[in-house]
Amino acid sequence: MKVRPLGDRVVIKRLEAEETTKSGIVLPGAAKEKPQLAAVIAVGPGGIVEGKEVKMDVKVGDKVFFSKYSGTEVKIDGEELLIVKQDDILGIVED
Amino acid sequence: MKVRPLGDRVVIKRLEAEETTKSGIVLPGAAKEKPQLAAVIAVGPGGIVEGKEVKMDVKVGDKVFFSKYSGTEVKIDGEELLIVKQDDILGIVED
Amino acid sequence: MKVRPLGDRVVIKRLEAEETTKSGIVLPGAAKEKPQLAAVIAVGPGGIVEGKEVKMDVKVGDKVFFSKYSGTEVKIDGEELLIVKQDDILGIVED
Amino acid sequence: MKVRPLGDRVVIKRLEAEETTKSGIVLPGAAKEKPQLAAVIAVGPGGIVEGKEVKMDVKVGDKVFFSKYSGTEVKIDGEELLIVKQDDILGIVED
Amino acid sequence: MKVRPLGDRVVIKRLEAEETTKSGIVLPGAAKEKPQLAAVIAVGPGGIVEGKEVKMDVKVGDKVFFSKYSGTEVKIDGEELLIVKQDDILGIVED
Amino acid sequence: MKVRPLGDRVVIKRLEAEETTKSGIVLPGAAKEKPQLAAVIAVGPGGIVEGKEVKMDVKVGDKVFFSKYSGTEVKIDGEELLIVKQDDILGIVED
Amino acid sequence: MKVRPLGDRVVIKRLEAEETTKSGIVLPGAAKEKPQLAAVIAVGPGGIVEGKEVKMDVKVGDKVFFSKYSGTEVKIDGEELLIVKQDDILGIVED
Repeated sequence: MKVRPLGDRVVIKRLEAEETTKSGIVLPGAAKEKPQLAAVIAVGPGGIVEGKEVKMDVKVGDKVFFSKYSGTEVKIDGEELLIVKQDDILGIVED
Repeated sequence: MKVRPLGDRVVIKRLEAEETTKSGIVLPGAAKEKPQLAAVIAVGPGGIVEGKEVKMDVKVGDKVFFSKYSGTEVKIDGEELLIVKQDDILGIVED
Repeated sequence: MKVRPLGDRVVIKRLEAEETTKSGIVLPGAAKEKPQLAAVIAVGPGGIVEGKEVKMDVKVGDKVFFSKYSGTEVKIDGEELLIVKQDDILGIVED
Repeated sequence: MKVRPLGDRVVIKRLEAEETTKSGIVLPGAAKEKPQLAAVIAVGPGGIVEGKEVKMDVKVGDKVFFSKYSGTEVKIDGEELLIVKQDDILGIVED
Repeated sequence: MKVRPLGDRVVIKRLEAEETTKSGIVLPGAAKEKPQLAAVIAVGPGGIVEGKEVKMDVKVGDKVFFSKYSGTEVKIDGEELLIVKQDDILGIVED
Repeated sequence: MKVRPLGDRVVIKRLEAEETTKSGIVLPGAAKEKPQLAAVIAVGPGGIVEGKEVKMDVKVGDKVFFSKYSGTEVKIDGEELLIVKQDDILGIVED
Repeated sequence: MKVRPLGDRVVIKRLEAEETTKSGIVLPGAAKEKPQLAAVIAVGPGGIVEGKEVKMDVKVGDKVFFSKYSGTEVKIDGEELLIVKQDDILGIVED
């Protein structure tokens, strides 16, 4: 079972500090107040959103930074995910 | 008797935890503060809404996640429904 | 004497619980905090409203749900009416 | 001496309960919190207002309901008038 | 020395009760909370302001009502003036 | 070293009361709460700013009034400057 | 590893007072409340952002002033960076 996001929404999964240190990224310890690193799980189709053309710039598998406090938490098959608008994604991390 | 929503509005019915666990979805217990899973009951025609073209992306029968606190509760034939704007629907759940 | 609403405004009259139960609709008792059911009394011409094209989707006689706290109360020939914008009308009730 | 309103503004004069009961309209007694009935005294030219085309729908002599708390009070030749935007006018009363 | 206002701005000078009673206008005494009557001293060129076409409807010498609390006070050659946006001017007084 | 402002931004330098009285302008004493007189030091290129065409109306050397509390202070080569948007400039002072 | 910013976002790195005094710029001591000087590390592609065409005016290596409190802090390879929107960049410092 999965979620197909609407419009310019993107389903992401937070990357924990444990996972990210493997790839060399230094994440602040108990980073409640810090922006977040996540993996893109599903990407909406874009198109006309609130009357404006939106082109999707992220794709499934991208590692991204996103604005803290953005989006809505959903729980699917026991997994905690986040549905954000693409505009809440700040940048794509490239190794 | 039913409600025909105007513009980009959608009539949805909350799916209780009891129903959803049957289909394998894990919903947090007393999830007052959590986003909600619902079934789409009726869909507005879309078109020009507040001066902007809106295309309807959901259809009757879709299982959807929607933003908490969004929409307006209505009670029809004893059934509690919610009328939301399509923009309050985050994504469609696919089994 | 009657009111001809301007632009995208609609004159509606609240339907009391007494009237509505006749038609099978279950309305919550002292529903001060709940959305409201009303009958459409007069409909503005639509057209360009605040720079945006508005098409009127309701007609005189429609039974509608509207957002609570929306609109302005007026009293005409002893009758309490409400002038709302069409966007405050959530949906049309069909029997 | 008179005021020529700019843009989509309209000069109106409140109709007191005394005057209005003559014409059969029932106005609530000390209606401080209620919408108001007024006569249109002068109408702006409309045209482009804040970048949007506005067509004037009211004319001098119209009896109108307007939103409470809207507009600005002016005093001309000892008479208390109100300058409102046309959008603050809810509807035109027809006898 | 004078101020040439930019865009849709207008330089105005408050008309005191003393001056205005000469011309027959009745102004409330210590009208701190009341809209104001002023003379237009200088008018900006209009044109595209914040992306919207603005046509100037007032001219130097006009006597105008303006919204209270609007604009910014400037002091030039010892004279207290006010720079407002044309949209803060409600109407032009005609004798 | 200098700052080249972006978009519709303008770098200005406050004119102190001492300097301005030489040129005949009367500035209120400790005018913390008053609008400010400044000299234009650098002007951005204008063009499309937040999706809107902006034409620059001020030039280096102009003496201008600007809205109090607007802009951001920067310190360059020991000199306190202010970077404002052109829209925060009310008018140009002409001697 | 680096961050590729989306849309009109720019990755910048704060320039400390130590570094900047070398190049002759006077930075206020413990300037917590002051605007900031930074070096541009990465620049988004611009294009249509929230329905508006944005052209990028800064390039990697530019020394810029940016609005205090703007942007989001990210930490990459142990380095503290800031992701801001280009509109939060006030001007480019030229030596």
